[in-house]
Amino acid sequence: MYPKSLQNLIEAFRLLPGVGEKTAERYALAVMDMDTMDAEGFAQAMHAVKEKVHRCSVCGNLTEEDQCDICRDSSRDHSQIFVVQSPKDVLAMERTGEFHGVYHVLNGLISTSRGVMPEDLNIDSLLKRAGQAKEIILATNTTMDGETTAMYLDKLLHEKYPDVLVTRIAHGLPSGGMLDYADDMTLAHALSERRRMG
Amino acid sequence: MYPKSLQNLIEAFRLLPGVGEKTAERYALAVMDMDTMDAEGFAQAMHAVKEKVHRCSVCGNLTEEDQCDICRDSSRDHSQIFVVQSPKDVLAMERTGEFHGVYHVLNGLISTSRGVMPEDLNIDSLLKRAGQAKEIILATNTTMDGETTAMYLDKLLHEKYPDVLVTRIAHGLPSGGMLDYADDMTLAHALSERRRMG
Repeated sequence: MYPKSLQNLIEAFRLLPGVGEKTAERYALAVMDMDTMDAEGFAQAMHAVKEKVHRCSVCGNLTEEDQCDICRDSSRDHSQIFVVQSPKDVLAMERTGEFHGVYHVLNGLISTSRGVMPEDLNIDSLLKRAGQAKEIILATNTTMDGETTAMYLDKLLHEKYPDVLVTRIAHGLPSGGMLDYADDMTLAHALSERRRMG
Repeated sequence: MYPKSLQNLIEAFRLLPGVGEKTAERYALAVMDMDTMDAEGFAQAMHAVKEKVHRCSVCGNLTEEDQCDICRDSSRDHSQIFVVQSPKDVLAMERTGEFHGVYHVLNGLISTSRGVMPEDLNIDSLLKRAGQAKEIILATNTTMDGETTAMYLDKLLHEKYPDVLVTRIAHGLPSGGMLDYADDMTLAHALSERRRMG
């Protein structure tokens, strides 16, 4: 057996997603081999994240302030709301530089298989702000749970704000995608959502 | 951009072996989603490991005491020393329940490609205790670096203690191994180290 403290750290690493016994062991031993300063900084960073970072009161994205940078940015188009599953998706979209509106982070997707219900998600605050928007772009993943969540939100938003335009991100072949490698669903969508050239 | 504290934690995770940008991001977000108690425990465990765990003064294995459990265990055969690269190997061997001697952890292997020299390893303390042993089993990996290290140690030990038996773990086909999947080196060893049946 490893010493107790090392065993505790291995257990802690196992709480991370996709980390099994072997990987946790490797990580814990790597911490052992780190400079004391690096390891202390690591522990400190973990502490600080829980202390300082929380959800933006408007959109649910992560921030150290009351509102996130994007919600506080008056140069952005606050009438266009891009609805995503997680803060990672905000970052991915921001990297493209193509979107100038604001975001709404659901913090999950409705999932019957994993027992995630609408009330577990950040939906109430979307309903509150949706009335001021012109367009709400549902950009949840194109997976089963993502589609379910999009359909649920579409219905909800349509009932409450019939005048707000609700759209769904396009679903088709990815860039560089090859037809013979695409799955049936993707191909079917690529066909049904085809558009006129030029 | 993520909030500063979260970015710091992502950087910290990137110090772990094999963890890239994406994985570090996933881990840091998982810490965000943990109970505060779990996350604080995690930070605490990291702190404790650096504070309490260190190398056994005899064999170099990890321990919270001056000497590790195995070195302090008088029921074990202290005349047989099993020399390995890392504490992980000690655990793996202990799991078999087949070895009743003691260990020596080198904390690495000689590697010309990565610039690891004999003086970087825990070899001096092996030379100090080797005189009291009857057999020293060199159990470094059967990789290039492992073989180099074993050959180096064999020469060193033989010069200093010509009466101590120095052995090398067997090298051949693994259990359940298939000849047509084995590499040439393994097959060559399996042939040259063959033994009489029954």
